[in-house]
Amino acid sequence: MSQMQKQIKLARRPVGTPSMEDFAFIEAPIGAPSAGEVLVRTVYISVDPYLRGRMQDVKSYIPPFQLNEVITSGVIGQVVESKSEHFSKGDVIIGNLGWQEYSIANEREIRKIDPTLAPVSAHLSIIGMTGLTAYFGLLDIGQPKEGETVVVSGAAGAVGSAVGQIAKIKGARVVGIAGTEEKCRYLLNELGFDAVINYKKEDVPSALEKACPNGIDVYFDNVGGSISDAVFPLLNKFARIPVCGAISSYNKVEADMGPRVQTALIKTSALMKGFTLGDYSDRFKEGGAALATWLNEGKLKYEETITEGFDHIIDAFLDLFTGANLGKQLVKVADIE
Amino acid sequence: MSQMQKQIKLARRPVGTPSMEDFAFIEAPIGAPSAGEVLVRTVYISVDPYLRGRMQDVKSYIPPFQLNEVITSGVIGQVVESKSEHFSKGDVIIGNLGWQEYSIANEREIRKIDPTLAPVSAHLSIIGMTGLTAYFGLLDIGQPKEGETVVVSGAAGAVGSAVGQIAKIKGARVVGIAGTEEKCRYLLNELGFDAVINYKKEDVPSALEKACPNGIDVYFDNVGGSISDAVFPLLNKFARIPVCGAISSYNKVEADMGPRVQTALIKTSALMKGFTLGDYSDRFKEGGAALATWLNEGKLKYEETITEGFDHIIDAFLDLFTGANLGKQLVKVADIE
Repeated sequence: MSQMQKQIKLARRPVGTPSMEDFAFIEAPIGAPSAGEVLVRTVYISVDPYLRGRMQDVKSYIPPFQLNEVITSGVIGQVVESKSEHFSKGDVIIGNLGWQEYSIANEREIRKIDPTLAPVSAHLSIIGMTGLTAYFGLLDIGQPKEGETVVVSGAAGAVGSAVGQIAKIKGARVVGIAGTEEKCRYLLNELGFDAVINYKKEDVPSALEKACPNGIDVYFDNVGGSISDAVFPLLNKFARIPVCGAISSYNKVEADMGPRVQTALIKTSALMKGFTLGDYSDRFKEGGAALATWLNEGKLKYEETITEGFDHIIDAFLDLFTGANLGKQLVKVADIE
Repeated sequence: MSQMQKQIKLARRPVGTPSMEDFAFIEAPIGAPSAGEVLVRTVYISVDPYLRGRMQDVKSYIPPFQLNEVITSGVIGQVVESKSEHFSKGDVIIGNLGWQEYSIANEREIRKIDPTLAPVSAHLSIIGMTGLTAYFGLLDIGQPKEGETVVVSGAAGAVGSAVGQIAKIKGARVVGIAGTEEKCRYLLNELGFDAVINYKKEDVPSALEKACPNGIDVYFDNVGGSISDAVFPLLNKFARIPVCGAISSYNKVEADMGPRVQTALIKTSALMKGFTLGDYSDRFKEGGAALATWLNEGKLKYEETITEGFDHIIDAFLDLFTGANLGKQLVKVADIE
């Protein structure tokens, strides 16, 4: 195997919103697996807002990407050649692998998925990372109770749409905030949200007040910024805020300033807690099983925006910051054979 | 009893920092108790930062003071005349009573205190409201573990000094932030804090970094504002922030702006939770017993700043916002007879 393949490396650290020039497309040899390794053909690549954080050289829950190294994220692939007794040619696997057409993966960094359980791509979305993020953030931190009001921002995104549906399953009244009429219609008509707010067309503070006549008990925060600011005056006593993402500030060069939250938290005895999926790694089995059950019962719908072709990975990544995607953003690089 | 007494009413709602003109000193008849009531002579009045919030006409955890009504707060008094079978003349009682020389109190809104357990005034401070606030906020939300770093702002205040000492009892390393050299020396030399920062003399972000080489696990927030802003970059994974007070913003007329906290919370999976003492009313007995034990074991010290005379209540209240007081601020109105 001395064939060449395409890879994407971080060429420089983005300042503000990332652009095509921050990335380098490289040709490199595919290589061959050693003992305990497999050669994997990349099938789907997950592009996610959190990757923006890893492009900065700052301390965080995972180390930053290094310059001139291949970028990594969630990948589904198919085994082409195996030097591991745990994997055979043709196995469909998932792991955190490189943005490249082929990967040499150690047997310990990948796991097999069952392609009969759900469409393969769902393992990167509704029953995978994004579904689990919604599941643990909402249920462990948000703890919605029947009849309570749950507000979710980034509601048409992969995490947000799962959050809203799980909150409905738990009997809550769900208000979604999204940025296009199409997304709002989808939340209302397809996913059964009780109310929606188009933050690009409506004044969020007054629209929220109207949509939440009984106040807000849970706010699942995917966006931060001024949308989240509008939530604090409406919090009920003992409200809970799972803080999952702050996409509005990921590209800010200056400090992201807003009204301080302390007084609102004191007035309501509210709880705000950041989290990342890794905090719940010992409970993935529980979460995955619950999500698969709801999916198969028809209680959980999901959308994917699938961009075709390795060459369009960066376009798909940049689209995350313009709100172009509905549901989980994936890039399809190859077919399963 | 048709004698006259002095009362203090809210004359107008303060804008920004309260001033003497916001209050009215009134002469009014003392009155006489009916069945189930007692006449109480005011002995100590507690003046607290949270009262500033009640002077605004906004929704909060307790209703705002009404204009031209007598202001109320924690009061220790002595029964002068009883029409209740539960109280006798001479009993020392505690309750939420008016800023006036005498009160007619219903038997259900006051309770007897044991003047032999600790100095009477301690029931308004270290084994009362302020000690309990420290106890529940730190132990229930902050949950300090042995060897962890606990930072407390407003550290020389009544709540802050109890927080630091309880954290020491639990084996934590304690860093206090206060605003005078005298307060800092007191925390270091008298209360056994491990490090102190004088926020009026030092650059808080760099001083905190130096004082917390292993990061911050618990931040007990009494002040909000720019002091609290400096804590977020130093939070450790799974840090906890009990949000108790935001004295720096109580007098702000404009929105209190600062760096948004969402990104820091996500990076560290940190928890931030507002609370008020009332959230723990079903556990006061547990807390009071623990505090009295530590007090009698000599593990818990406390200071009171006692202003003498009814006419100086407003001075004492205004002093809270200039950082003049060390420990609990009380006003002594009369002696126990």
